[in-house]
Amino acid sequence: MNCTGKIKVFTPQTITGYGVAKIVDSSNPDFKKGDLIWGLTGWEEYSLIKSTQGLFKIQNADLPLSYYTGILGMPGHTAYIGFYEICSPEKGEYVFVSAASGAVGQLVGQFAKLLGCYVVGSAGSKDKVDLLKNKFGFDDALNYKEERNLDAALKRYFPNGIDIYLENVGGRMLDAVLLNMRVNGRIAVCGMISQYNLEHPDEGTRNLLCLVTKRIRMEGFLVFDYYNLYPKFLEMVVVPLVKQGKITYVEDVAKGLENAPNALVGLFSGCNVGKQVVVVASE
Amino acid sequence: MNCTGKIKVFTPQTITGYGVAKIVDSSNPDFKKGDLIWGLTGWEEYSLIKSTQGLFKIQNADLPLSYYTGILGMPGHTAYIGFYEICSPEKGEYVFVSAASGAVGQLVGQFAKLLGCYVVGSAGSKDKVDLLKNKFGFDDALNYKEERNLDAALKRYFPNGIDIYLENVGGRMLDAVLLNMRVNGRIAVCGMISQYNLEHPDEGTRNLLCLVTKRIRMEGFLVFDYYNLYPKFLEMVVVPLVKQGKITYVEDVAKGLENAPNALVGLFSGCNVGKQVVVVASE
Repeated sequence: MNCTGKIKVFTPQTITGYGVAKIVDSSNPDFKKGDLIWGLTGWEEYSLIKSTQGLFKIQNADLPLSYYTGILGMPGHTAYIGFYEICSPEKGEYVFVSAASGAVGQLVGQFAKLLGCYVVGSAGSKDKVDLLKNKFGFDDALNYKEERNLDAALKRYFPNGIDIYLENVGGRMLDAVLLNMRVNGRIAVCGMISQYNLEHPDEGTRNLLCLVTKRIRMEGFLVFDYYNLYPKFLEMVVVPLVKQGKITYVEDVAKGLENAPNALVGLFSGCNVGKQVVVVASE
Repeated sequence: MNCTGKIKVFTPQTITGYGVAKIVDSSNPDFKKGDLIWGLTGWEEYSLIKSTQGLFKIQNADLPLSYYTGILGMPGHTAYIGFYEICSPEKGEYVFVSAASGAVGQLVGQFAKLLGCYVVGSAGSKDKVDLLKNKFGFDDALNYKEERNLDAALKRYFPNGIDIYLENVGGRMLDAVLLNMRVNGRIAVCGMISQYNLEHPDEGTRNLLCLVTKRIRMEGFLVFDYYNLYPKFLEMVVVPLVKQGKITYVEDVAKGLENAPNALVGLFSGCNVGKQVVVVASE
């Protein structure tokens, strides 16, 4: 019971999340015993999967299987769709990525660099900022927790303004970005992690009038709508880039299902460095 | 000096606005003495126009000349671009228009009805609501000043949600609309009149996460970027519709340049009914 007197009742349910699994039994001829798959599974050692929608067979088992929860799976595909499909980027454009060391952000930044864009990322610790600059090849990176005035910070990093923003956080970062967007800018809204767990919504976004004055397109998307592009992304884009070493990928691995709750909670305060993975069982 | 002790200094300048004028002298061979034009002119009896960018010769002088400040000019073109180009509307979609009795809004609503959409407008008085329903043919209309809970109001008018929103006001209306948008909705941001004159920005938009969950595209635009489509809009779309009586247009006419300041100020409290026009000189 919280202090306003409301009672919240939780019905225990298995938490779902993107996982990699091996099929131990199947009545579906397309998925045979021994096949490796990725898709929505349960936080449990054995899952009964009733729908094959959004379930993909793993063909390239020579790459680390955990990559299919990240760079080769939903987050990687999200980065690809958000950057290429939603933002229609061009060489030389100025790209800003928030939550840039996360599973989506680190890839967006690397895709943008490969295209010849100028890329700056924001993250919440010195370690992450170093990672962005030294491992992922971002042109620059900022620690948003050390910036009292995000608008002024963005003006330092982008004196010419921002063409493309990959929005992962929302809140005051979005407000500062709007002030620094260039004419005809694009904002792909992947998520707004700062807004997910607020008891009351925060102060709100105040600079939306910039959408008009700068003719900005701001578009939310969910990667489920782009499953038809997944095979192309996987085979033509990301697997070759990973195998050629042109893209780097960092995971933060927790071991054991019993450590999954702490790993989840840690995401909201930025404890993870790179994609948070939980190893439930090894082959 | 305002109460915080700041001193504001204004340098007197001629206010500019969209006007209709007759050329009394010209050194440009494309614009001859006697030609009628519309475009950005001064709030004055005679203007010296140095740039012909955004200046259009009036060919259809058989329609009221004041219409070129509205339905046949910038606001009409704005309605056309915002609805057709930005929102890609389809027959049967649910369309909501704010500031719906204004120069842009009344046209968007009528374009949407002609296409076979379901259209509701919001305005700030009973007279305007009546105008929307009885003169412009909106399916329904609401007086936002009488609605304490805009979210609940929109749920009454759009039990199935909103596909397309023509945003002219911003603020709490936008927040309520976001909660009521349908998946794959489009928001064309024409303006945000509630935000123009705030000493401090208001409480901000809090429901932007809906952009992601509902895959909404929100796009600001300025009609200047679409001048290439103006001749098509004028000759193929709006002039035929006006001449055939398929589109109605309401103006609120103030007479005399000395009444222009009050007419302008009145816009921000919604005193005008329809497009506010000021007659400076008659032929």
